[in-house]
Amino acid sequence: MHNVSVIYDGKSRRVADEMVMAEARFIAQRNREEQHCDCTDGMFPRSAPTNRRKFLFAAGSVAGIVGSTAAVAQAAPGAVSYDVPPDSTKVQGRPIGEDGGYGTRSQFETELRMRFPTANAYTSWSFTPLQNMVGNTTASGLHFERDHNGIPTIDPSRHTLTVHGMVETPKKFSMADLKRFPFVTRRHFIECSGNGLTEWNKPTLKTVQGTHGLLSTSEWTGVPFATIARDVGLREGGTWVLAEGSDAAVMTRSIPLEKMLKDALLVYGQNGEAIRPEQGYPLRLLLPGYEGNTNIKWLRRLEVSDKPFMTREETSKYTDLMANGKARQFTLDMEAKSVITFPSGDMKLPGPGFYNISGLAWSGRGCVQAVDVSTDGGATWYPGRIESVPEPMCTVRFSFPWMWEGKPAVLQSRCTDETGYIQPTLKQLIAIRGDNGPFGSIYHLNAIQSWGVAADGSVTNVHA
Amino acid sequence: MHNVSVIYDGKSRRVADEMVMAEARFIAQRNREEQHCDCTDGMFPRSAPTNRRKFLFAAGSVAGIVGSTAAVAQAAPGAVSYDVPPDSTKVQGRPIGEDGGYGTRSQFETELRMRFPTANAYTSWSFTPLQNMVGNTTASGLHFERDHNGIPTIDPSRHTLTVHGMVETPKKFSMADLKRFPFVTRRHFIECSGNGLTEWNKPTLKTVQGTHGLLSTSEWTGVPFATIARDVGLREGGTWVLAEGSDAAVMTRSIPLEKMLKDALLVYGQNGEAIRPEQGYPLRLLLPGYEGNTNIKWLRRLEVSDKPFMTREETSKYTDLMANGKARQFTLDMEAKSVITFPSGDMKLPGPGFYNISGLAWSGRGCVQAVDVSTDGGATWYPGRIESVPEPMCTVRFSFPWMWEGKPAVLQSRCTDETGYIQPTLKQLIAIRGDNGPFGSIYHLNAIQSWGVAADGSVTNVHA
Repeated sequence: MHNVSVIYDGKSRRVADEMVMAEARFIAQRNREEQHCDCTDGMFPRSAPTNRRKFLFAAGSVAGIVGSTAAVAQAAPGAVSYDVPPDSTKVQGRPIGEDGGYGTRSQFETELRMRFPTANAYTSWSFTPLQNMVGNTTASGLHFERDHNGIPTIDPSRHTLTVHGMVETPKKFSMADLKRFPFVTRRHFIECSGNGLTEWNKPTLKTVQGTHGLLSTSEWTGVPFATIARDVGLREGGTWVLAEGSDAAVMTRSIPLEKMLKDALLVYGQNGEAIRPEQGYPLRLLLPGYEGNTNIKWLRRLEVSDKPFMTREETSKYTDLMANGKARQFTLDMEAKSVITFPSGDMKLPGPGFYNISGLAWSGRGCVQAVDVSTDGGATWYPGRIESVPEPMCTVRFSFPWMWEGKPAVLQSRCTDETGYIQPTLKQLIAIRGDNGPFGSIYHLNAIQSWGVAADGSVTNVHA
Repeated sequence: MHNVSVIYDGKSRRVADEMVMAEARFIAQRNREEQHCDCTDGMFPRSAPTNRRKFLFAAGSVAGIVGSTAAVAQAAPGAVSYDVPPDSTKVQGRPIGEDGGYGTRSQFETELRMRFPTANAYTSWSFTPLQNMVGNTTASGLHFERDHNGIPTIDPSRHTLTVHGMVETPKKFSMADLKRFPFVTRRHFIECSGNGLTEWNKPTLKTVQGTHGLLSTSEWTGVPFATIARDVGLREGGTWVLAEGSDAAVMTRSIPLEKMLKDALLVYGQNGEAIRPEQGYPLRLLLPGYEGNTNIKWLRRLEVSDKPFMTREETSKYTDLMANGKARQFTLDMEAKSVITFPSGDMKLPGPGFYNISGLAWSGRGCVQAVDVSTDGGATWYPGRIESVPEPMCTVRFSFPWMWEGKPAVLQSRCTDETGYIQPTLKQLIAIRGDNGPFGSIYHLNAIQSWGVAADGSVTNVHA
């Protein structure tokens, strides 16, 4: 249906065009599937609710989000639909235990991840619906994903992690072995280095889900690599570690040993339960602040070496082409970044008045120090309120009280991290990184995002 | 089937006996449903895995956790079952988007909430499986629940909150109205005041799910009541607020206005998405540190008054009967408490060696200051390691490295909060509260929990 054989040809806008179409289809389908306003943004009532029979979304009944022609589900995935009584105090509610002991979201909640329209659905990615998110943690069912050859189904009782190379005692650990070690629990974001790749040259996608949705935050639990390193014993001279996944792509990346010893975690827990299959069940590497693809999922092997392994992902992919035609390799830290999620693209403000501008800010180099907000395209900046004590390499939610007078406005946010680094404008970023045309520059777009608010309240993605 | 008409008769152990039986059935059913070791505790491999076709748990196919005779599901609730290839690197994984854009947990994860065997399933409660939990946040699908007349299905576009009584301008807020106010995001535990009610007189339930599972922690997002109070304007003389739910029980509690203004939140977000139906969708009251039932779910009305309303839940229920026959009312703060979740009851240690003792600690009066751990029944205490920066009225996960020599041991944890309060022994608690026999004392059992470890590694609930 969609002939997208070359993702990054550096010349064509075809992929961007596909993505624009896919996003439009996604928005349209979501609107059809929604029974009414989900009230998450509180702005967009759509249609009257109807009473429905119980309905559980059946896996496989929708072939995929993008381009699906399947019948519209009566409740969004992840929900069970029940009759809605006119007055809930007049009829007994549902019995406890009807959910089988594991709850689902409300039938009125319809947020979905949106898949990027790659040619096949096995090497692709899906975006977190940031526009409807509340708080700082990403709901586990909505965590973004980037898979290089599908999502493997792995039996944890047979899964092992081999640690070898320049170590004293090579070992193979079962999941049970790993879980006997002391663990730590940390909250960290993961961001795909390609987050925003459509936005280098002109504002392309309509929603913050499309422009920034390859970002999610979870509470992760696992064993520090440093603990495992002490168990196997490191030999002198090791400087890099190869991490390998057990997916069909056998995804591999080289990680500096220094980073591995500093804060790398072998993670099996996410938001209080086992990590989800799309996040690497039963084991993933978690490298706080590093670009997403290095956080190898379905982790099965770690090999210590004295040089990087120059895998496919380090030569043909995941490098930054500069203006002089050379490419930077191993640009692993995600720089400070922020985005306003409310209001954001494709929303419409109902009229002048008070709005609580809100968004997320993060840095791969430590804690967020400050978030500034502008409503006039960067001419004036005001300090945003940060909602929680910033944690290292973790998002914070910020907000800013705004009295909109009904005139055109451009909303921006700007993150400063604890190193003093200030999130750049797109112009500043391109001055350093070069302008290599559509998809010549792909990765590490951390520029300030602008949302234009028109006099009629409609919000659009703009470059300002 | 189970004739439990009187829950708290103060004389009979019938309910406790029912709960013991129910827990045994629950454990047995869980073991049948598990395909093999879920490896969460890493200790209990059960049987070999089998290849299965895709299967999605269908709501209603299991009539309830307790006493169900329905066919055994092929994947636990909340999961989809897929074939398991012998080598996941040799076959393409599942396509992205097959989950419809909202992910589920792995088919190998089988933790479930367990329902207390009340006579009907509409006024009942279900316990979080703390024994398999990792980290500090409770997975949304496993958050404990206490419902007084079933779980209502509420359309958020029609839901309103009325604020009236001793206010300048009574108002009715839609969900959209509420979401336009500035919000805050906070992590807090909620604990049922009846958590541990079976454990006053003798060790009764086998697992930490049964003894402590009416405790869960989430990231909550909502509007401070103080903000709404400024919007409606408080009249002079108000001291209490009635909070009323829109469930079929029309659950009501009186809350001191001082507490409401200090830190009460009108919550619509949980762990990054809308709160779950069992947690009060679309709106609940969140009173950090207060006993669970006061955190009114499905919140529809707040009435400011100059006295408490003396609702049913404040006269016949949720009071503490003292030794002199009088009852304490409005004992709303949950005192400091902790429990070891690994190892815990019904587990078996495979042999002498290193174990990472781990558990949760919390206080309704502020931050956890310290957690001490004993392996000899309280004769010797060592400081536990707290895994994260303590937040007010939020659990912390603690751990303690233990080299087990294979001899009988009694494991205990003891929480000290920022007020200097130290979690008491059961003996100390009964000395103050009195010993009113089985279920005479029901609520606010925050005594130190003991797990006995036998020479063969089996772990049991003991009083020590």
